[in-house]
Amino acid sequence: MSRKVCIVVNSRANYGRIKTVLTAVKNHPDLELQLIVGASALLDRFGSVIDIIKKDGFEPTSVIYSIVEGENLTTMAKSTGLAIQELTSQFENLKPDVALTVADRFETMATAITASYMNIPLAHTQGGEVTGSIDESVRHAITKLAHIHFPATQKAADNIIRMGEDPSTVYVTGCPAIDICNKSSVDELSSDFFENYKGVGPGIDPFKPYIVVLQHPVTTEFGQGFFQINETLEAIRNIDMQIVWLWPNVDAGSDDISKGLRVYREKYSPKNIHFFRNFSPEDYVKLIGNCKCLVGNSSSGIREGAWLGTPNVTIGSRQFGRECGDNVIHVGYQRDEIEKAIKFQLKHGEYSSNHLYGDGHADEKIANILATATFNINKKLCY
Amino acid sequence: MSRKVCIVVNSRANYGRIKTVLTAVKNHPDLELQLIVGASALLDRFGSVIDIIKKDGFEPTSVIYSIVEGENLTTMAKSTGLAIQELTSQFENLKPDVALTVADRFETMATAITASYMNIPLAHTQGGEVTGSIDESVRHAITKLAHIHFPATQKAADNIIRMGEDPSTVYVTGCPAIDICNKSSVDELSSDFFENYKGVGPGIDPFKPYIVVLQHPVTTEFGQGFFQINETLEAIRNIDMQIVWLWPNVDAGSDDISKGLRVYREKYSPKNIHFFRNFSPEDYVKLIGNCKCLVGNSSSGIREGAWLGTPNVTIGSRQFGRECGDNVIHVGYQRDEIEKAIKFQLKHGEYSSNHLYGDGHADEKIANILATATFNINKKLCY
Amino acid sequence: MSRKVCIVVNSRANYGRIKTVLTAVKNHPDLELQLIVGASALLDRFGSVIDIIKKDGFEPTSVIYSIVEGENLTTMAKSTGLAIQELTSQFENLKPDVALTVADRFETMATAITASYMNIPLAHTQGGEVTGSIDESVRHAITKLAHIHFPATQKAADNIIRMGEDPSTVYVTGCPAIDICNKSSVDELSSDFFENYKGVGPGIDPFKPYIVVLQHPVTTEFGQGFFQINETLEAIRNIDMQIVWLWPNVDAGSDDISKGLRVYREKYSPKNIHFFRNFSPEDYVKLIGNCKCLVGNSSSGIREGAWLGTPNVTIGSRQFGRECGDNVIHVGYQRDEIEKAIKFQLKHGEYSSNHLYGDGHADEKIANILATATFNINKKLCY
Amino acid sequence: MSRKVCIVVNSRANYGRIKTVLTAVKNHPDLELQLIVGASALLDRFGSVIDIIKKDGFEPTSVIYSIVEGENLTTMAKSTGLAIQELTSQFENLKPDVALTVADRFETMATAITASYMNIPLAHTQGGEVTGSIDESVRHAITKLAHIHFPATQKAADNIIRMGEDPSTVYVTGCPAIDICNKSSVDELSSDFFENYKGVGPGIDPFKPYIVVLQHPVTTEFGQGFFQINETLEAIRNIDMQIVWLWPNVDAGSDDISKGLRVYREKYSPKNIHFFRNFSPEDYVKLIGNCKCLVGNSSSGIREGAWLGTPNVTIGSRQFGRECGDNVIHVGYQRDEIEKAIKFQLKHGEYSSNHLYGDGHADEKIANILATATFNINKKLCY
Repeated sequence: MSRKVCIVVNSRANYGRIKTVLTAVKNHPDLELQLIVGASALLDRFGSVIDIIKKDGFEPTSVIYSIVEGENLTTMAKSTGLAIQELTSQFENLKPDVALTVADRFETMATAITASYMNIPLAHTQGGEVTGSIDESVRHAITKLAHIHFPATQKAADNIIRMGEDPSTVYVTGCPAIDICNKSSVDELSSDFFENYKGVGPGIDPFKPYIVVLQHPVTTEFGQGFFQINETLEAIRNIDMQIVWLWPNVDAGSDDISKGLRVYREKYSPKNIHFFRNFSPEDYVKLIGNCKCLVGNSSSGIREGAWLGTPNVTIGSRQFGRECGDNVIHVGYQRDEIEKAIKFQLKHGEYSSNHLYGDGHADEKIANILATATFNINKKLCY
Repeated sequence: MSRKVCIVVNSRANYGRIKTVLTAVKNHPDLELQLIVGASALLDRFGSVIDIIKKDGFEPTSVIYSIVEGENLTTMAKSTGLAIQELTSQFENLKPDVALTVADRFETMATAITASYMNIPLAHTQGGEVTGSIDESVRHAITKLAHIHFPATQKAADNIIRMGEDPSTVYVTGCPAIDICNKSSVDELSSDFFENYKGVGPGIDPFKPYIVVLQHPVTTEFGQGFFQINETLEAIRNIDMQIVWLWPNVDAGSDDISKGLRVYREKYSPKNIHFFRNFSPEDYVKLIGNCKCLVGNSSSGIREGAWLGTPNVTIGSRQFGRECGDNVIHVGYQRDEIEKAIKFQLKHGEYSSNHLYGDGHADEKIANILATATFNINKKLCY
Repeated sequence: MSRKVCIVVNSRANYGRIKTVLTAVKNHPDLELQLIVGASALLDRFGSVIDIIKKDGFEPTSVIYSIVEGENLTTMAKSTGLAIQELTSQFENLKPDVALTVADRFETMATAITASYMNIPLAHTQGGEVTGSIDESVRHAITKLAHIHFPATQKAADNIIRMGEDPSTVYVTGCPAIDICNKSSVDELSSDFFENYKGVGPGIDPFKPYIVVLQHPVTTEFGQGFFQINETLEAIRNIDMQIVWLWPNVDAGSDDISKGLRVYREKYSPKNIHFFRNFSPEDYVKLIGNCKCLVGNSSSGIREGAWLGTPNVTIGSRQFGRECGDNVIHVGYQRDEIEKAIKFQLKHGEYSSNHLYGDGHADEKIANILATATFNINKKLCY
Repeated sequence: MSRKVCIVVNSRANYGRIKTVLTAVKNHPDLELQLIVGASALLDRFGSVIDIIKKDGFEPTSVIYSIVEGENLTTMAKSTGLAIQELTSQFENLKPDVALTVADRFETMATAITASYMNIPLAHTQGGEVTGSIDESVRHAITKLAHIHFPATQKAADNIIRMGEDPSTVYVTGCPAIDICNKSSVDELSSDFFENYKGVGPGIDPFKPYIVVLQHPVTTEFGQGFFQINETLEAIRNIDMQIVWLWPNVDAGSDDISKGLRVYREKYSPKNIHFFRNFSPEDYVKLIGNCKCLVGNSSSGIREGAWLGTPNVTIGSRQFGRECGDNVIHVGYQRDEIEKAIKFQLKHGEYSSNHLYGDGHADEKIANILATATFNINKKLCY
């Protein structure tokens, strides 16, 4: 009898970082995929990730709405509670043999708590990495709840073991996000690339140079988002190139970022910026694989960026401490340093590919381990 | 302006382990106590801890019902989600400067998640200890979310630091549970000691020898509770002494334990067993300080038992790995070994006091640190 | 394509009142049954109704835990909120064409709100009846949310129409609870009748006379339950006959009733009372069809009692205003009137059958209407 | 001792319809105001009603986030469940003597259920009115849960009594929304009237003619909102006048309306439309008191519009059946009829004032009744 693997996808970031595993689990003879889609992955405002999931051929086993609106610290915590309430009923009825949770978002924590309390073995990707924001604490807390770990790098694996996890439960598989880089052709964009994604603002010519900007709120710096995004906007104002700007994720403070973007748009009607909600995982890889520079604080500039050689400017504390290749320049929130760094990267151009976050075959490795590993729910601090 | 310290008390165990800190915070000139009472501490079935709290002179700031009935793994997880939903609103409205959470129960996790996501500095007692059950995972996950740690022992502190916490945030204060041992006279029980607590079964003579039994479900062994408690009951059947039996806590599997006790009671109408729901923290210390043997899997046999020198028989995996003194004998679930160990302890008698879990002054230490420490909500894995 | 009919069963009372409809829907060629089992129907403490449901051959589509423990007014309301949260996800994923809700309990309200807000046509049984307790308000509020009504009596139907419902949506089908009376042989109990249901207390001889007692809390008289049940207990003390006593339902105040029963049991160890948690619907009909008197405030004394001719003593305000046959004597809460009324009924003996609540064929009627009716979700006050 | 009156304000509409009562309760010597602000009244996207509430001098007793994001039927129901969960804890801790709920929104239902289940007397405004949408069912269901009724009109009072409410609990007070019309000067707008409210789009000259448009989703026609709003937009395109457009409320389908507005804005960059999120209650009255026509499906066109004599075009089924004065023209969703009706109203100009919805003194009447009425929580169908 095949093992039922329940994977919970809660956001566009989640999906891109686990999509190849969904496929590998679905196709594995000894595994059965249970796919729950929830949280911001259901919301139009974040690009209706569920539509992309369905277009990719996955049939969600169930969907759960769990975002309490407010985009502040209170509602982020409350959404976590609601997600737990919802997931318990799903797990009660679906009875998975193992649950897999991705990275470090608050919805991820909900999956981790629900599974571990229900004696459902919990697998975790991206554990052991170091960053800023509340994600840092959440990621390590999930490691302490998880029964099997799929870190992306050896250093991350070392961290997991140093935190007292049993080494026999730690598998360095690389990050599934890299699988998509590996499998996608990033030669050039098709002529209709941007047309499929609507968004607002003047059209983007896929054959002309462009910069991608994606800046999320930093939950532990809640209240400073409006200032932070304004600095980035001012830096970008001085760059004469097409800009593909993605709206931020649903973390606390997202409203401040969005407000900054909307106010700027109303005020300046910028001629070179187009705002998008989402891209499919493959198109996102193509998008940043072809851009002249990726600016902001998304981990994709560091993670996928390493493989793709994308010049990256990482702003502020959100990615502070994360392993990265040569393609990354870290800057603070001030407009001047941001502008200077972007100009440096534009001049530098593409970097050589770095396989820091995986060899592009995490999917099969993870599926095979899920199919064969022995799970031990009686964890113990291991020193 | 004094710092608002919010302490969440969710069960009888919680209360005994934090009561002296409640007093110390309440009396500290630079601190203001916000006391939330919730979960099983509100329920008659668990001895209405809230009534004891009020009798002790504390006025709860608010009460929150959060236990989803079922006493299984699903409802334990769901109760955690509900508690988070409730606490977010409480914290939103009370705006504490720091939240303090006790040990490792599921309600404790709810406090930890809510506070850390809301950028409220989180203090944690009993971190770094090693045990079995889901408590083990939860305790360490909370450590990864907490901003300030009050471990009971040096070894526990070492574990916390080994898990990557900043050593400057780790204070070995001893366990507040020991404060009560230190402050209470355990000479002998008053003649009306048991009368105040009702319960069911034949009367207990406080001047004659008695054994205390307290066996909780082990969540990671869910489904085996009925068997486990039966073995203990059968072992006890062969002991000719008064038995003070406490009903189990609200963890998943509690129903199985309670059912075992009820079935036994209906079947045998035992002449020497009286079942109680709860004692005040001081009376509990007196109770176990005067008993001939404490049997079961409560940590109190190890923790308070060390200070009190109480002969203890610890059954099964729930306390596996916890630091303990000479007073503890670990046995498996089989009736024979349990009976044999009890008889050994009855013959051995009282042990000498061991200050393993503290010097009895955790309360002031914790209150003073809460009043003066600088909290840093930007955590980072610290190696 | 067949219509998906979602029926939510939340308690032992719910189940007995809808079981024949479950069967009729399941067997109807144009209907598909979606069965959700939740709330107290999942709890051991209320006799694990779900086990009976499964033994009867129904496979629940899903189960949902939704009872917040406390058994007071606050947790009754909170449980309603939780049930709505749970049902929304179930309905989102099951996509029923019509939802059917039974009578007037708080869980019933949850189904009504969820369905009506989700534009799912809502069918309702037992609307238009008049009683006491919060059930009275809830029942009529559900009528105002329901799109199709299956009242048990013409008088109830008249009430529904007087409240402004469109007469074309009101079908007098009789109550499905009566179907079971109609289909069951109530000649006499089998010799092992009581053995299957365990419970506590001395054995009951099914061939000797017995009285059945079932007294629920009255939510609008919250706080008086302990007194109320004591009066009944004292009345019963003076009756020299076997007593089959059922534990109360989960309504606010249930704890007070249970406490009264437990205290009495501990105090008097009554030789003639056996306490049961639940019976299958058919066995319940047999039980009350063969008893000498049914005492308490369950509607079954009035409803099934009418058909069965069971002498009934209805206590207090809970059933005040409900249509009833000759078999019912209404009394207040005082022990004297209760005792006097019981003795009158014991002397009187069986009443003749009265088909007040239906002809025993509600099941087919309801299933056929569900299969063929046109549902209009655009309701309008109809005068 | 004064009676504690708990009023729950959940949206901008709620606030305008109860503000004068908040003041009257606050100032009444025998009443104490408990003000809970929640749901969309907390959200920036709906104009941060809470900021206006605070500016008006009210200090919220507590705030509760309860909107589950999605703006569809599922999340509307789920938000109701969450609101009940939240309100139970608030009422448990605030212990109001009476709760007052406004009109017919889903959050209103949450207050009604929570209060009635908790035996807290429930007062209700706007009962007995007839409309379309789910509001129609919800309004009447709340009437069946409420213990004291403050209908706006005699006809509404008659409906309440016809539904079986005790006439002695029904007080025709008029609608508090009219109090604001009565108290506000609507002579003309100040020169900076629009500047305080930001919004997006070209500036509006308060001294030149303008039309106000406010069209909400109709929940029972979920899925048709995008079409519906487009028809209105196309009708408006042919009107050469300044347009003040308010974003819709949070009901299911709101996203469709907003999307229609955003798409139109991106496509046409209309030179005469400015989009606003909210106005203070007094400014809203001034706004519609000075406009040339109010278009859409807000009840304010009918209610306040009657008093103010504002030419109104009411679109679709949302207000179908509501009592109205001469100032209202009802039209379907087609662009042609909408355009024609607007042009008719522009030509007609102001109507004479009609005191259909009250004499402007509801506030004192309601406060006095709340202070003196005897509440009976034992409701019974009254015919």
